[in-house]
Amino acid sequence: MFSKFTDSDFNHYSSLFPGRVFRGSEINEDYCHDELGTAHGTPDVLVKVLSTDDVSKVMEYAYGRNLPVVVRGSGTGLVGGAVAIHGGVMLDTSLMKKVLELDENNLTVTVQSGILLMELAAYCDERGFQYCPDPGEKSATIGGNISTNAGGMRAMKYGVTRDSVRAITVVLPSGEVMRFGSKVVKNSSGYDLKDLIIGSEGTLGIVTEATLKIIPKPEHAISILVPFRSMREAISTVPKIIRAQVTPVATEYMSQDVILFAEEYLGKKFPTHDSDAYLLLTFDGNTREAVMHDMETIAELCLENDAIDVYMIDTEERSASVWSARSAFLEAIKGSTDQMDECDVVVPRSLVADFILYTHEVAKTVGLRIPSFGHAGDGNLHIYLCRDGLEERVWEERKDRAFAMMYSRAKEIGGLVSGEHGIGLDKKAYLLEALGERQLEIMRGIKKVFDPKGILNPGKVV
Amino acid sequence: MFSKFTDSDFNHYSSLFPGRVFRGSEINEDYCHDELGTAHGTPDVLVKVLSTDDVSKVMEYAYGRNLPVVVRGSGTGLVGGAVAIHGGVMLDTSLMKKVLELDENNLTVTVQSGILLMELAAYCDERGFQYCPDPGEKSATIGGNISTNAGGMRAMKYGVTRDSVRAITVVLPSGEVMRFGSKVVKNSSGYDLKDLIIGSEGTLGIVTEATLKIIPKPEHAISILVPFRSMREAISTVPKIIRAQVTPVATEYMSQDVILFAEEYLGKKFPTHDSDAYLLLTFDGNTREAVMHDMETIAELCLENDAIDVYMIDTEERSASVWSARSAFLEAIKGSTDQMDECDVVVPRSLVADFILYTHEVAKTVGLRIPSFGHAGDGNLHIYLCRDGLEERVWEERKDRAFAMMYSRAKEIGGLVSGEHGIGLDKKAYLLEALGERQLEIMRGIKKVFDPKGILNPGKVV
Repeated sequence: MFSKFTDSDFNHYSSLFPGRVFRGSEINEDYCHDELGTAHGTPDVLVKVLSTDDVSKVMEYAYGRNLPVVVRGSGTGLVGGAVAIHGGVMLDTSLMKKVLELDENNLTVTVQSGILLMELAAYCDERGFQYCPDPGEKSATIGGNISTNAGGMRAMKYGVTRDSVRAITVVLPSGEVMRFGSKVVKNSSGYDLKDLIIGSEGTLGIVTEATLKIIPKPEHAISILVPFRSMREAISTVPKIIRAQVTPVATEYMSQDVILFAEEYLGKKFPTHDSDAYLLLTFDGNTREAVMHDMETIAELCLENDAIDVYMIDTEERSASVWSARSAFLEAIKGSTDQMDECDVVVPRSLVADFILYTHEVAKTVGLRIPSFGHAGDGNLHIYLCRDGLEERVWEERKDRAFAMMYSRAKEIGGLVSGEHGIGLDKKAYLLEALGERQLEIMRGIKKVFDPKGILNPGKVV
Repeated sequence: MFSKFTDSDFNHYSSLFPGRVFRGSEINEDYCHDELGTAHGTPDVLVKVLSTDDVSKVMEYAYGRNLPVVVRGSGTGLVGGAVAIHGGVMLDTSLMKKVLELDENNLTVTVQSGILLMELAAYCDERGFQYCPDPGEKSATIGGNISTNAGGMRAMKYGVTRDSVRAITVVLPSGEVMRFGSKVVKNSSGYDLKDLIIGSEGTLGIVTEATLKIIPKPEHAISILVPFRSMREAISTVPKIIRAQVTPVATEYMSQDVILFAEEYLGKKFPTHDSDAYLLLTFDGNTREAVMHDMETIAELCLENDAIDVYMIDTEERSASVWSARSAFLEAIKGSTDQMDECDVVVPRSLVADFILYTHEVAKTVGLRIPSFGHAGDGNLHIYLCRDGLEERVWEERKDRAFAMMYSRAKEIGGLVSGEHGIGLDKKAYLLEALGERQLEIMRGIKKVFDPKGILNPGKVV
């Protein structure tokens, strides 16, 4: 189907990008898998690109030669999306870190897609602005965030990555350069190609630059940590929070077991161990009074709904200990076992508690440890299946059974396969089951419009 | 290209939908054009549908027979989008008005697509909720709003129609029924077909039901009307408002001439005539203090930027007079001339003043009266070209010249053809010019994936 990568191909790229083209043992093993390492594949060549023009040249040649191309940012994905399962060209955007423009009048920042989330956040923060999306993995690239439409911990108030992308520069598989969207805030000018690219996991085109919405940084913020007697009590409070006349920035759910892993992982103490189940909520705004009003409204609501207590996270130290624990959950769970896989379902927000209880049932039924945490305010759960030393065959079997049970339940209750991690390679079967053959056929038709030769991230998503 | 509509086709539809199928003189002339009446076309048959199932049956038959189909809600469009220029079937959704579900836990309302914006607003309001988008034309259907991704007067704070659509039920040209999106608030599960349908003006599929985001109705709101000495002073204040730590719900620009039309049209007085140029701003929130703080912050900022005065619109009467004037602008301008056409460009918010001044230049250069008003906070302008009794040939010539000048300038400064009215039939040439042949080719490819026979709203958008 694809051409075999040859010395002549290598020489071509080397002459175009001297010192930035690698093969064989020059390619670090990290490039052969992503963060979870569920999928493996070795690229024939690794090209470190610096610009849209570089990407265009890589693609123009690969298109002519019929070589598969996979784009990779930081490789922090969890579903095998950025893995070169067919070999070919790996296009590494991690050197594309430039901030191209800060437009303080229109409140946009334009960046190259390889800039890290934490770098962009720092850039904005230093200038009094905020880029709103705040996914847990701060060392992901913005390009990666766009390719999976990452959500993160401010989605409840500020939306997901999609909501902050005004325009993107995209290189098509043929090497042609397109600009979808613009700096404007409303648009009804033809089909929405920008939103089609966002979340398409590098299968339709390569995002090289993005013009992102920013806001003046809110002047005040406060978090509260609220212990409840049980998970059900904690999570059944969430729909009431959603209905209150207050929108928290974040409403995160965390259970005691996950907090303990994080403590061990970080070597730092969490401020309380009162309870099995916590909500962590953040509020922001531009006057201290408004933020305190919001916080107090929700604190009272929690106490009326059987919260044990409400801790204000109002010192730097407390805030650091709580949020560093929250940010470390994935790594901490990973550290607690030899291998794991994950399920990133999103369900209607009123059904989060039911779904978590169901994962406990699944854990018992199949015989796996299944810790979870999640963005309760968004109905998006991160559920981890831990191998815990099981032998390969048993692990695979139990894992598949657990996934099948969970995705099938999610579908029953109106949920979807992925809230923010994407489909990649690992979740394709579940996507098909969730959406049906006809929707996948439409998606494949769209793939063909953008990528008639099927060279871009082949075998992923659709 | 299409089949000729026959008696046998009429009889087929009549037997399926007795009493709801019309032809010839039974079809009111209103169905042959939209609100502006720039395009004309007479459908061979008009079918009033009641349900998704009805729509599916109409399409299945039309697909088999190769008959063109145009969907129409209230016909309030301005660019010829819902006009049957190839005859065939007109599918009228105006009887599909049911509210199917109010989900107070997940804060969604699910409706049939023929419900009017004002009906939906009233339904939500009575129950303590708010559907956020607020386009000027309250008698448009939600289906129509979705098909053009209408923006409206709360977009600055709450986003456009797209941002409030969680899921849609869509009938494909073949009659197959699809559900895109879900009640969930985050989604990274395959390509974003929902957002592709939104804004596609009935050319890819027919939206029959929509699950919409609602919010608890803000408890307090206040508007201020701010006269400035000149348009430039008024509008150059807008980027400063955007940069302040406050987000108004609306920031509307209005000029004296347009206000005078509205007064005459409504037979009601506007509360002030101090000035040539006004900003009308609204603030909302859940405490009176927070709303007053926001209002005062922006009022001060306006006064520091040479506003003449700040009028609080704090009585029912004042509010009614100001907002009814604002809502009547389109009708009022229409009433001031024999014929008009419009330009709905969207430009970066910092360049609105420049663009309005440019329209004054264009008016002088081509010899047309060109009043305008607009969503200054969104960079979206509604600009009207008035015929004022000119003879046909002169009008057409001047209008085309004016459009060419304005769209070309919009492109130069990073703007787009349409902020919320869409492309329809009238703006196709300008869309092509703005996006280029290659982007249109991609859009046409997508059209073909959804509608291989090209029977759905043929000749529109792409």
